[in-house]
Amino acid sequence: VKLPIRIPSFDDAALAGAVHARWNNLTKPPGSLGHLEDLVARYALIRGDTFPRLSSKGMYVFCADHGVTAEGVSAFPSEITAQMVRNFLRGGAAINVLCRQYGIDTAIVDCGVIGDCAPGVIDRKIASGTRNFATAPAMTIRQAEQAIENGIELAREAAARYDIAGVGEMGIGNTTAASALQCVFCGVDPAESAGRGAGLDDEGVARKARVIRAALALHAPAADDPVGALAAVGGFEIATMTGFYLGAAASRLPVVVDGFITCAAALAAVAIAPAARDALLFAHCSAEKAHRLMLRHMNVRPMFDLDLRLGEGSASAIAISLLESSVRLFREMATFQDLC
Amino acid sequence: VKLPIRIPSFDDAALAGAVHARWNNLTKPPGSLGHLEDLVARYALIRGDTFPRLSSKGMYVFCADHGVTAEGVSAFPSEITAQMVRNFLRGGAAINVLCRQYGIDTAIVDCGVIGDCAPGVIDRKIASGTRNFATAPAMTIRQAEQAIENGIELAREAAARYDIAGVGEMGIGNTTAASALQCVFCGVDPAESAGRGAGLDDEGVARKARVIRAALALHAPAADDPVGALAAVGGFEIATMTGFYLGAAASRLPVVVDGFITCAAALAAVAIAPAARDALLFAHCSAEKAHRLMLRHMNVRPMFDLDLRLGEGSASAIAISLLESSVRLFREMATFQDLC
Repeated sequence: VKLPIRIPSFDDAALAGAVHARWNNLTKPPGSLGHLEDLVARYALIRGDTFPRLSSKGMYVFCADHGVTAEGVSAFPSEITAQMVRNFLRGGAAINVLCRQYGIDTAIVDCGVIGDCAPGVIDRKIASGTRNFATAPAMTIRQAEQAIENGIELAREAAARYDIAGVGEMGIGNTTAASALQCVFCGVDPAESAGRGAGLDDEGVARKARVIRAALALHAPAADDPVGALAAVGGFEIATMTGFYLGAAASRLPVVVDGFITCAAALAAVAIAPAARDALLFAHCSAEKAHRLMLRHMNVRPMFDLDLRLGEGSASAIAISLLESSVRLFREMATFQDLC
Repeated sequence: VKLPIRIPSFDDAALAGAVHARWNNLTKPPGSLGHLEDLVARYALIRGDTFPRLSSKGMYVFCADHGVTAEGVSAFPSEITAQMVRNFLRGGAAINVLCRQYGIDTAIVDCGVIGDCAPGVIDRKIASGTRNFATAPAMTIRQAEQAIENGIELAREAAARYDIAGVGEMGIGNTTAASALQCVFCGVDPAESAGRGAGLDDEGVARKARVIRAALALHAPAADDPVGALAAVGGFEIATMTGFYLGAAASRLPVVVDGFITCAAALAAVAIAPAARDALLFAHCSAEKAHRLMLRHMNVRPMFDLDLRLGEGSASAIAISLLESSVRLFREMATFQDLC
């Protein structure tokens, strides 16, 4: 993939020192806001600003269908993807409720849902669902590149509008693609990476692991060819999110990664451009069992662990609110001089 | 203590079943909101309402000074307590920033700060600081009873105004009192319960443990005499919070416990009336090392762990926002019937 992006360095000892100094001058014991202090330091480094604001917030929900559902790897049928897209547009889904509460704009991106685009979505549809990667690559290399480019462009637009973006997804079958990508990028076995998704029983999980194992043998995707891996066993929403992370990093737009599937896209983005990792913040460790291994592989600390496994950006929305709290504390608390 | 309260039963299998059934009818995989689903069940049981609202929110910050600071058990001098009370009233403290963001009213309660009450506080001052419990009981039994009664009354007023209350505290020296109470109620050794507080070094922590050990030997407080224990080694804000928990439980007002010190007051409340525990929600596990043991002793699950150790109600405010999210999801999400 020709990457029309350049990711800046997010290391800046002077900036980190200035943030630390301000925290220690606020009316609290030094270090007593714990991880919230670290989050602001990270956020400031991404923004390249010692006194960053966090006012405008956007949530991007990337949606697509997956041919691999033909193998019986999901507890729900593909039709649910389009139904949930309509639910997002009508404001009835979990992500809508959370974004209303926290003042986060929502954008629903159709990257490859089966059927026509619903009125109101952002149309970045590559095709009506991927092919079944049990029998053929999920998409062509050109389709993977197009999805990544779409993501980069969307991130550039997001950076012009928002101080921070959250990322979520919807796509029946997409935990299978995410688990397969984890095998590629983290070198784990399908038995480790395959989980219950939206509600598989033990037999379903075993089937999912077999399908992934066979697909890895068939396509032989490699960690040093991330676009090829996305094409072989990825998904349109996953490839678009991969591009979104790259474009956001290039634009100094902090992005809050949601859960297991969004994290799989982060693995791909980091495989393409390792520097992209430091523009990402990680919301939570989900109940999808292999998520913890992914987070460990990237050496990142999630903000919370509430046994969520919904996706959609639900954990990301909560994390944005927490990050907003952190930034408000940093900006609005009195200093010890103010007290005198 | 004569308790003018009666705590209802918070067990109701039919109500819990109704909550569970509604969660499973919303547009998400069953159980996928994890701990948020459990939190709403708990909240509904406390309210005694299958479809509870969470709109009005109050934060009570209980403040007092501690004579035991004369023993060098705190990294900060007692004067900081009154300074921080003024900071709370001017809106410059961490708790103010968080309550502004989340739409939570704040009430600052002076339970025993040294000096005159600051204009704007709720005056429930028992005395200007406790006595040094290294040499005498921290307060008289009558003072402990009065503080508990004050708390019960404040909770009754809170229940008339709010759907939920958060509890926080400020009081230089109060981790020493909290650690001493943990020794009494959880049977742990002072070496286990004494932590860094607002920033003690190793020598300070060792001194704090010695002071607690000597005080326990001097007063011999017992878990089966919780009011006597509060009088011996407690604090005015801790005893007032103890009463607040009891009054809240009696009024079906859910209360979110903040961190280590507020949790020590919960130990006392549960020792007085075990049923009070089930009206409490626990915000976080703080960085004060013995807090985890306290939570385990009460067999409760905190919502998050962000290495906070500030107090003031800061974790409680964040937790109220999370609980509000949970209740909004429960009330506002579409059902699968809505989708058709």
